[in-house]
Amino acid sequence: MNSLNIGMVGYKFMGKAHSNGYRALPMFFPDRIKPNMKVICGRNTGAVAAAATQFGWEEHTSDWKDLVSRDDIDLIDINAPSNAHKEIAIAAADAGKHLYCEKPLALSLKDSREMLEAAEGAGVKHMVGFNYRFAPAVLLAKKLIDDGRLGDIHHFRAWFLQDWLVDPDFPLAWRLQKEIAGSGAHGDLGAHLIDMAHFLIGDIADVIGMSETFIKERPLPDETAGLSATGGQSAQTGPVTVDDATLFMARFANGALGSFEATRFATGHRSTNSFEINGSKGSVIFDFERMNELQVYFTDDQDDVQGFRRVLATDPAHAYAGAWWPAGHPIGYEHTFTHAFVEFMDALQEDRQPVPNFNEGVKCQQVLEAVELSIKERKWIEVSSL
Amino acid sequence: MNSLNIGMVGYKFMGKAHSNGYRALPMFFPDRIKPNMKVICGRNTGAVAAAATQFGWEEHTSDWKDLVSRDDIDLIDINAPSNAHKEIAIAAADAGKHLYCEKPLALSLKDSREMLEAAEGAGVKHMVGFNYRFAPAVLLAKKLIDDGRLGDIHHFRAWFLQDWLVDPDFPLAWRLQKEIAGSGAHGDLGAHLIDMAHFLIGDIADVIGMSETFIKERPLPDETAGLSATGGQSAQTGPVTVDDATLFMARFANGALGSFEATRFATGHRSTNSFEINGSKGSVIFDFERMNELQVYFTDDQDDVQGFRRVLATDPAHAYAGAWWPAGHPIGYEHTFTHAFVEFMDALQEDRQPVPNFNEGVKCQQVLEAVELSIKERKWIEVSSL
Amino acid sequence: MNSLNIGMVGYKFMGKAHSNGYRALPMFFPDRIKPNMKVICGRNTGAVAAAATQFGWEEHTSDWKDLVSRDDIDLIDINAPSNAHKEIAIAAADAGKHLYCEKPLALSLKDSREMLEAAEGAGVKHMVGFNYRFAPAVLLAKKLIDDGRLGDIHHFRAWFLQDWLVDPDFPLAWRLQKEIAGSGAHGDLGAHLIDMAHFLIGDIADVIGMSETFIKERPLPDETAGLSATGGQSAQTGPVTVDDATLFMARFANGALGSFEATRFATGHRSTNSFEINGSKGSVIFDFERMNELQVYFTDDQDDVQGFRRVLATDPAHAYAGAWWPAGHPIGYEHTFTHAFVEFMDALQEDRQPVPNFNEGVKCQQVLEAVELSIKERKWIEVSSL
Amino acid sequence: MNSLNIGMVGYKFMGKAHSNGYRALPMFFPDRIKPNMKVICGRNTGAVAAAATQFGWEEHTSDWKDLVSRDDIDLIDINAPSNAHKEIAIAAADAGKHLYCEKPLALSLKDSREMLEAAEGAGVKHMVGFNYRFAPAVLLAKKLIDDGRLGDIHHFRAWFLQDWLVDPDFPLAWRLQKEIAGSGAHGDLGAHLIDMAHFLIGDIADVIGMSETFIKERPLPDETAGLSATGGQSAQTGPVTVDDATLFMARFANGALGSFEATRFATGHRSTNSFEINGSKGSVIFDFERMNELQVYFTDDQDDVQGFRRVLATDPAHAYAGAWWPAGHPIGYEHTFTHAFVEFMDALQEDRQPVPNFNEGVKCQQVLEAVELSIKERKWIEVSSL
Repeated sequence: MNSLNIGMVGYKFMGKAHSNGYRALPMFFPDRIKPNMKVICGRNTGAVAAAATQFGWEEHTSDWKDLVSRDDIDLIDINAPSNAHKEIAIAAADAGKHLYCEKPLALSLKDSREMLEAAEGAGVKHMVGFNYRFAPAVLLAKKLIDDGRLGDIHHFRAWFLQDWLVDPDFPLAWRLQKEIAGSGAHGDLGAHLIDMAHFLIGDIADVIGMSETFIKERPLPDETAGLSATGGQSAQTGPVTVDDATLFMARFANGALGSFEATRFATGHRSTNSFEINGSKGSVIFDFERMNELQVYFTDDQDDVQGFRRVLATDPAHAYAGAWWPAGHPIGYEHTFTHAFVEFMDALQEDRQPVPNFNEGVKCQQVLEAVELSIKERKWIEVSSL
Repeated sequence: MNSLNIGMVGYKFMGKAHSNGYRALPMFFPDRIKPNMKVICGRNTGAVAAAATQFGWEEHTSDWKDLVSRDDIDLIDINAPSNAHKEIAIAAADAGKHLYCEKPLALSLKDSREMLEAAEGAGVKHMVGFNYRFAPAVLLAKKLIDDGRLGDIHHFRAWFLQDWLVDPDFPLAWRLQKEIAGSGAHGDLGAHLIDMAHFLIGDIADVIGMSETFIKERPLPDETAGLSATGGQSAQTGPVTVDDATLFMARFANGALGSFEATRFATGHRSTNSFEINGSKGSVIFDFERMNELQVYFTDDQDDVQGFRRVLATDPAHAYAGAWWPAGHPIGYEHTFTHAFVEFMDALQEDRQPVPNFNEGVKCQQVLEAVELSIKERKWIEVSSL
Repeated sequence: MNSLNIGMVGYKFMGKAHSNGYRALPMFFPDRIKPNMKVICGRNTGAVAAAATQFGWEEHTSDWKDLVSRDDIDLIDINAPSNAHKEIAIAAADAGKHLYCEKPLALSLKDSREMLEAAEGAGVKHMVGFNYRFAPAVLLAKKLIDDGRLGDIHHFRAWFLQDWLVDPDFPLAWRLQKEIAGSGAHGDLGAHLIDMAHFLIGDIADVIGMSETFIKERPLPDETAGLSATGGQSAQTGPVTVDDATLFMARFANGALGSFEATRFATGHRSTNSFEINGSKGSVIFDFERMNELQVYFTDDQDDVQGFRRVLATDPAHAYAGAWWPAGHPIGYEHTFTHAFVEFMDALQEDRQPVPNFNEGVKCQQVLEAVELSIKERKWIEVSSL
Repeated sequence: MNSLNIGMVGYKFMGKAHSNGYRALPMFFPDRIKPNMKVICGRNTGAVAAAATQFGWEEHTSDWKDLVSRDDIDLIDINAPSNAHKEIAIAAADAGKHLYCEKPLALSLKDSREMLEAAEGAGVKHMVGFNYRFAPAVLLAKKLIDDGRLGDIHHFRAWFLQDWLVDPDFPLAWRLQKEIAGSGAHGDLGAHLIDMAHFLIGDIADVIGMSETFIKERPLPDETAGLSATGGQSAQTGPVTVDDATLFMARFANGALGSFEATRFATGHRSTNSFEINGSKGSVIFDFERMNELQVYFTDDQDDVQGFRRVLATDPAHAYAGAWWPAGHPIGYEHTFTHAFVEFMDALQEDRQPVPNFNEGVKCQQVLEAVELSIKERKWIEVSSL
């Protein structure tokens, strides 16, 4: 197999990011299977036609059912709003298509498990869009842990801090409506932190959470897209039905202690997706706003020069970095998507499941729901009980 | 009153810090009441005699009971190990002495309440050693909040991260023994975070915590002092009876969400005492390792130049800063003690209680115990129920 | 005009960067003139054919003379080694092609002036590849200065620090040979600093410099490409004929004082392209390794909150930023090229010369040579005397 | 010898800093010779009497000639304005007193050489007040260089950036008058950089400089003290006769390239005294505003974790640090003076000259004048020619 035909459902923020990721792949990773940007799909015919032209897709359609049944499509990429993931993914799996699905997999653990079952039953490859795993600096953290260079892990703490909801006039976008988005900061931002914890530390044993919706009514929007409110807003208001912020503590299976916080009310933080890990032999600190950097500390450094190193993960020694620019030249947010697609292509080549796949999507959903249950019942919840 | 005679009980790490704080006061704050370093007291006669000479005390004694009964002593400063605070404080209060007591006030909420009652009953001034309040950068954060420049507070998160226990060969110092220290990271480090939260945000409504002792047996020490292990260590080991790390989440009375972490296992952090506050109009970030700085963000900055400012709190505009060196010249850890003593002298001058006093000490102890109870019972605890 | 046919000469580091810049343009700036990636040209037929496929060019050729004479080509993009710029640019101008030429324009001031004359004589649009101007954070600095928000400028200091030559075994690549590269750190890195100074501060009146070649002999390479040494290296060595490091001081026409340093021996700096500007009302600091950030200081901030702000130039308020990702999501090195090409397209649309054009290229070359002369003659040189 | 009697001439900014340095010495370095704060001297009797009380000196006088002739004085500390240094120092040397003199030694190289001759002729110990050498982080840089851990040094660059003169209404303080201060930013701030270069890198072979007085007339002050303008200011103005900013380039005897900048017009910098050194095996970066930190880079770190380390120089492994507080607890500006005095006491104990002594003061003055000459003659000046 030298190339693969993609059909993509969704054309807004994530649709643009995925399109760009596919476009860059053959240029920077020319030895990998090439993704052909075949068909883009969206409900609004005019808008999806414009997106096809702008993003470089050969065709466009507003009928996803037709799309998933086409013989010339090998992979269905789903980045429509979260409440549409399940139906499309299962239909695509049943039609024998490989699957790339944005996170969160679905609005519930039950739904995400059905998606995993469908994908496994169909024997297709499946992947979930936890793109932050693919920043070279994050992959360096992973390597240091896997190689034992941080020793036994004692602490994991992580934050995903944004501030776009601090303004009470920000309208009631779809991400603030439970029936479409599932949850708020928790599912949107916290999901990334949970996946990062799974990736770097391992299974979470039990959790207890806390959440808040600071502003409970917001003006209704005329139209919304992704993170931004477009157009004017009506004088009417509606209830915010998701969390503005969710925090939780966790105990990992390996004994490490975890603390997590996702909020859209952290004034001054546009998108601080950050974590710190402390082990018996060393520590790492990552902040996505400086995504090319990893702070690294080792206890066995000489006594007089111990300190966190600011490692720029742009050297040839760093994962994926050699494919881009010379050392010291930053890459950006969008490159994480290209790396994720490279992983998918590698998995196809090697006939294995890509990682993270729907199993990781389900595991993330399980923790998300355990936290929600812990908030509702005000007590610790064992994750495996769900 | 132009001067005040001090009798101090304790002569190790805190004794040195307090002595230095008193010595600097008349030089840098010459218009304040002058503390006379009269008598220093400790159990080991030889050691306390040496400390008297080294630190500049007029006299020394090994009999604290005698000390508190002397007519020529106005203020008793208690920085002996935590389990000795109560008895000394109550005796001194009964003898009509003003009181400066290191944190934590006592090993239990009950004991600390008795100390407060004794002090109030005696009508003396009393203060508790939460010295970190007195860093000019922290006082700037306080001012910004009090003046409404951060708006409504949504988030408080705080960490006190140290790493001196990561080495399993570190001996079983007194700070690792429950009967002397009360608790471990929680009471030693977490207490500072809780007081900072009280100072900056206000009352804590309810809490839930988690803690761990990662290394459960350690070699017995030959001798210990403060944070450092001195001399060799025996081949015998003993059980660590305090926590290595304690985390908790909190809901403040004003609706803000709080997250706290105190640990001695954060490899690479010698003493990171840090907090961040997010309000509707702005945010602040503080890290004691860069104690002269406060990061400050305002939402009403112009659209194109929004960002956290690194404010060096060494300008004349900053509390206490004008008394020291020209703008841009850092001060250090020890200066927080001098500032605390200036507050005590100001309170005496103005005939009011200094802040923080034993009330703040009791409040801190109440939260410490609420967290401990929440850990034991694995559920949320209302702080006011204790 | 809706689109433009590009013929590009060069296919290595810069060829890849330019190709990627053209590819991204129509997707992120869909309202601009679209660049068609028509023909790529290089001396090695096999290598350029591979590049054509990898980078997405319709055709390839090894005959640049044929290329510049084709009727269906509107713009010639020159990123071949520096010694080839002049001949190609003049031939292309004579053929009526618009020109985009990498810096430095040529190996000498004389040559670059001839190139400018040819372009002006032919009446074509011309642009020079000072891509760092187009980082949104740099454009923010420009805006602050132009709007008077920094006041009168007193100081400009700039560094371009790399470390890839510290290893004495690094081979004698083409960038270390005067006859191909013209100069070393001075022309390669210093040229960017000089252009940045011209862009942000204005004309340079006089200069005095200093330079050094720390390692004077290096092993001959088997083959080299761009910044990296590929393959093995022979036992033979050859002389390094360019500077490893060049520093100079400058006085600007407006009275500001400048200091410049370009080096490939700054251990630990992969590519620190950094500047600081101090004005009577404020200051800015930029470092390309954190290219999404600008540090900004204003004297009229309130007394107690004065400090450098870390502005993330990813907000809609920042130039070009709105075309990419939501606020807080970093872009990378490559995006500066897309922005440069957008400027070219805007200039074509508005029938004006793009900026920076060959005039800026000549001005940069003039300062480069003035510095070289000042080093040779060990005295201050008036730039306008050249 | 167990103690030493000090007579100090000067009682303003530096007088306070020195007094505090002496006071702290016996408490934190109890095994060293103890400085007795015997007599403080100043022209204004009332002011010096107040200073004596405030700073803790036993006696005060307004007659320095009497002071230097007293039998009970062992060491004369001179921190009066720069134009008074020479006469006092020579008289004190002639009287057989040891000497501690603030920098710059004198207003001219000639004068400073006479001071050195007098001190050497008298056989006394002499030291000059380059206190910044004594920050533990700076001493760490020194150690790394001396131990060869940075390899051969290629680059030294240093800045001393302040901003207190940006306001044109700042009055014409003594530091702005050539006849009292000698020079402006150059002698006040640049002198520290030159000494740092001598300390860390070695001799400077030749130099070329540039300087500017941006604001040429300023209001006359009613009274001034140190860095701050006190009281009101008259409507009359007078000419500023010193430099606001001076830059220079230097070539070191060992082949390293140097760049220096001292300015009082770097808006946003209260007191950024910073340097960077690049060697063949590593680099260091220091900034006095974060004086407890040294950034350290080593080329032989593993390929995937290369980066500057933020070393907190507060560990027991760091010079002088163990005498103060536990690891991670910052010290401040004032501690550098105590360390300098410890060096003096150590030199007395070991019967050797302290370092830096008047030789270093003369060497610094030589470079200062070479730079001034290079500015006047607009050409490179060989330092040894002066």
